[in-house]
Amino acid sequence: MTSAEISTAALRRRIADLAQLPATLHNRDFLLTWKNTDEAVRSVLIAAEVIEQLYRGGLSTRLFQSGLGLSIFRDKSTRTRYAFRAACNLLGLMTEELDEKTSQVAHGETVRETATMISFATEVLGVRDDMYLGMGHNYMLEVRAALDESFAEGVLAQRPALINLQCDLDHPTQSLADLRHLISHFGSLEALRGKRIAMTWAYSPSYGKPLSVAQGIVSLMTRFGMDVVLAHPPGYELLDEPLQAARSHAEASGGSFEVTHSMDEAFENADIVYPKSWAPLAVMKRRTELLSQPESDAALGELERSCLAQNAEHKAWECNEDRMRRTKDGKALYMHCLPADISGVSCEAGEVSAPVFDRYRLDTYREASHKPFVIAAMALCTRFADPAATLGRCLDRNQKRRT
Amino acid sequence: MTSAEISTAALRRRIADLAQLPATLHNRDFLLTWKNTDEAVRSVLIAAEVIEQLYRGGLSTRLFQSGLGLSIFRDKSTRTRYAFRAACNLLGLMTEELDEKTSQVAHGETVRETATMISFATEVLGVRDDMYLGMGHNYMLEVRAALDESFAEGVLAQRPALINLQCDLDHPTQSLADLRHLISHFGSLEALRGKRIAMTWAYSPSYGKPLSVAQGIVSLMTRFGMDVVLAHPPGYELLDEPLQAARSHAEASGGSFEVTHSMDEAFENADIVYPKSWAPLAVMKRRTELLSQPESDAALGELERSCLAQNAEHKAWECNEDRMRRTKDGKALYMHCLPADISGVSCEAGEVSAPVFDRYRLDTYREASHKPFVIAAMALCTRFADPAATLGRCLDRNQKRRT
Amino acid sequence: MTSAEISTAALRRRIADLAQLPATLHNRDFLLTWKNTDEAVRSVLIAAEVIEQLYRGGLSTRLFQSGLGLSIFRDKSTRTRYAFRAACNLLGLMTEELDEKTSQVAHGETVRETATMISFATEVLGVRDDMYLGMGHNYMLEVRAALDESFAEGVLAQRPALINLQCDLDHPTQSLADLRHLISHFGSLEALRGKRIAMTWAYSPSYGKPLSVAQGIVSLMTRFGMDVVLAHPPGYELLDEPLQAARSHAEASGGSFEVTHSMDEAFENADIVYPKSWAPLAVMKRRTELLSQPESDAALGELERSCLAQNAEHKAWECNEDRMRRTKDGKALYMHCLPADISGVSCEAGEVSAPVFDRYRLDTYREASHKPFVIAAMALCTRFADPAATLGRCLDRNQKRRT
Repeated sequence: MTSAEISTAALRRRIADLAQLPATLHNRDFLLTWKNTDEAVRSVLIAAEVIEQLYRGGLSTRLFQSGLGLSIFRDKSTRTRYAFRAACNLLGLMTEELDEKTSQVAHGETVRETATMISFATEVLGVRDDMYLGMGHNYMLEVRAALDESFAEGVLAQRPALINLQCDLDHPTQSLADLRHLISHFGSLEALRGKRIAMTWAYSPSYGKPLSVAQGIVSLMTRFGMDVVLAHPPGYELLDEPLQAARSHAEASGGSFEVTHSMDEAFENADIVYPKSWAPLAVMKRRTELLSQPESDAALGELERSCLAQNAEHKAWECNEDRMRRTKDGKALYMHCLPADISGVSCEAGEVSAPVFDRYRLDTYREASHKPFVIAAMALCTRFADPAATLGRCLDRNQKRRT
Repeated sequence: MTSAEISTAALRRRIADLAQLPATLHNRDFLLTWKNTDEAVRSVLIAAEVIEQLYRGGLSTRLFQSGLGLSIFRDKSTRTRYAFRAACNLLGLMTEELDEKTSQVAHGETVRETATMISFATEVLGVRDDMYLGMGHNYMLEVRAALDESFAEGVLAQRPALINLQCDLDHPTQSLADLRHLISHFGSLEALRGKRIAMTWAYSPSYGKPLSVAQGIVSLMTRFGMDVVLAHPPGYELLDEPLQAARSHAEASGGSFEVTHSMDEAFENADIVYPKSWAPLAVMKRRTELLSQPESDAALGELERSCLAQNAEHKAWECNEDRMRRTKDGKALYMHCLPADISGVSCEAGEVSAPVFDRYRLDTYREASHKPFVIAAMALCTRFADPAATLGRCLDRNQKRRT
Repeated sequence: MTSAEISTAALRRRIADLAQLPATLHNRDFLLTWKNTDEAVRSVLIAAEVIEQLYRGGLSTRLFQSGLGLSIFRDKSTRTRYAFRAACNLLGLMTEELDEKTSQVAHGETVRETATMISFATEVLGVRDDMYLGMGHNYMLEVRAALDESFAEGVLAQRPALINLQCDLDHPTQSLADLRHLISHFGSLEALRGKRIAMTWAYSPSYGKPLSVAQGIVSLMTRFGMDVVLAHPPGYELLDEPLQAARSHAEASGGSFEVTHSMDEAFENADIVYPKSWAPLAVMKRRTELLSQPESDAALGELERSCLAQNAEHKAWECNEDRMRRTKDGKALYMHCLPADISGVSCEAGEVSAPVFDRYRLDTYREASHKPFVIAAMALCTRFADPAATLGRCLDRNQKRRT
């Protein structure tokens, strides 16, 4: 799609839709989707769509003359790290990353201090901390409290928005990019009502993958009338808080939420399937305990071995052609947050067979393509009092990205 | 403070004050405060204040359409690294950091070469090299000579300003941010005349902390009529050059400078206290010697043990409530460059007791908040021929940081 | 040279020269000089010259309001890394580097995926992969194919230009910066016709230096009527593809290309000498084989020892005063891509004697100074449909780099 092809009229209608929603995210953070109202979530979705269209239309969405977008990654990341940086750049923010190895950051008392020290000219602060159950979200709450205090006391001239780039509870930039993908694929948010999505565990020969992608999906997709089915072997339960959110959302939205121990059952008549590995809950809880104890290396090694052995009992949980045939017309949309463990390609046996993945490979790339715009939308909605008017000005001024 | 709240009239008066001072820093570096005139130091202080006010007023201080702010950190850094990047961003410079591990940088002959190789489009070059006595400042002089030659010979289209982000002799971005904090706290530079500041050594269970913060404080604060008292146990003397500067400045400014071996005496009737650990001078000198010798690991280990043993004799050098009661009305302003070693929090026994630190915690954050603006002011004053006129234009054009 | 000193009329003439050349690089990559037409190469040279003049004249060449310049360095780099970042900054692109250690990048299947994941808002993608014969260029072809597919399928809103920052075959940003240096030194591209350039191997006590600098020089310099002589000891042959390109170019351009095993013979009457170490071809081929085999550490160690022993037989291949006296009037221009191995300075015996290097040191800095502008020119010519018109607008709008 080129500049000439974007429809200004259509964009103005979407901006008008956004203007109907209360700007409740202004001066707030974005940590857990279920702590935000439906309107807030819809705002981010519409803003992301508009920013993406402006981008594809070749228009600049530069809104800041200066300012930093700072990230802290306490786990490896390619996709989300890049998406965060691209999002900041779209808005005119220069990115920096706090490298805890070359700085003097420690845990405990100094989280509060560091949060302020890196925020004097910061507009957005993105954090990934997803390694240990019970820790990532709490770390973000500590950062939030520090920012609140320093802003209230006048130490900070502006309060940076804190954006969750994945914690132990939720992965909102992923789940909202995934939802943008579904909206784009099926035509509208309304079109998703009544669609069946199977969020299922799948086998991977790896250890310690976070639960938060699955938790993010079931808690978010239940919100807009979809029929969400969660499938996993016994022992791979998700945390209570997102499960409870999923149940409440399903009830409120007229959708449904069910849990099964059968991958086949989940795939049955599904419009969308999302097969993805995560670690056993008990193992993750035990791991968090051990990490706080001295001389736990041997115990941690033993834990990893038992986890992999437990995983290996469920090698049959693979998304393959047989299973895909069970889905609606055999043509469910396959989703993955990437990178996928592909049988015979990246590992001997994995989450998905090569033929299935190949057929949907470009779809998964499309799915990923929305993330920079979702993060930019979160930044826009948290940092600007009137996101709709702000986007309207981007359209009006007609500044090309390339001079 | 919001945009509406900054007083344009007051800002114009400060800019007029700046215009009265000769722009002696133009096309120069900022390495040691005592090698600069009082007017140059005052220029940086006023420029930093104006830039900070413009920032708090929501105005853009973007002055460069392109250009790099490059940093070299030969020691760990959180605060100064962030402050340098924020400062560059405030002026429109993109930051890069030379990572000596992923590049091919060596010592000796190639400092000269590297300095030029990373300067073709660089406006500001910030360097931290504070680990070894007799080395950091000399390294910066080598870089300076290389830049001078390459600019004189037409290799460089512009001569980047070299900014000392901490060396073995001085830490000017820290001491000037500290002075900005005092000006802000007490109302004006003139209000500091006759105020008593105690720069004192304090106990820390750590090894090898640079002397340059203390050296920066005593050499700078004596310049404007303050009564500066330096306290440390025998063996923790500072280097001659900054001590000599402190004595000369005190004499010229009508202030005073004294040295004592008693922390209590230093606190007596003080308006400001700055308790901070540094390493014993003889140990630091020996360490530098050993590092240039082969197979010195055992000797270095022994040196560290003897240093820590020497430190441990002075555990009583803690800033606590008893000592604070000795200060002016028991209410001296506590300062620290952060992170502080807080007794019972970050270590068993440290520089400051938890109750004292807690009471002044937000003050130390305010102290730190000035550093990005001080660095931006150094860049402004070194790179622009008429800093006052340049800041005046920022005010006149009224470009908001957010569009 | 200051703003007042650049000649607008001369610049307009060069822009007019550029306008005469077909814009064949638009929406293409820049991987190997010999896969590009003479016109494409001339376009980059002229654009680099104009961008450099605009820079020296203090004018902004910012063309992007947002966008990323992303780099992947699979080998150490100081000069090229900095040059890439400076080039992106000149055009308004923010730089990011993909760090394969903190991301989840693997070889094989996922090159394709990663290439897309980091390109959603990327305009230029620079890659260095020069360690193993037969791998670097192939890696870039994989990346290119991935970008082509994702753009064709609409996953990417724009197709980033891929720029080779050194592979196993060519080092085009180096060879074109070198050619810019020669044009600048001798006055014009036409003035190089008939000039004799000696690209010769030289001794270095190091292992595994890439062949691609030498390959880049002989294949490029033959294109414009120069007499190119390549000298190396037996066993240090270059790869066939660039050698074949050199032969064809010499024939087509009316220049010449000869290979000799005598450094003295190569220096005889040379106008330009480029003495530089590289690894023995057979060793490099064997190394690539071993690296794909399990448990090859011992064999690799043995290979390194034999390579260094082979090198040591050729210590006489040093560029020194005696050899320089053989050149045209004893005054040939010495070139090096830096850092050079200087006898008695960076090593006991090396590529060049200290007196020769010292005499030409600033010339080698000038040589290096062109690289940022060459990379910016590659980005301009690949990303803009009409580079001449774009540069003309930069001149017309007269936007200063500093406000």
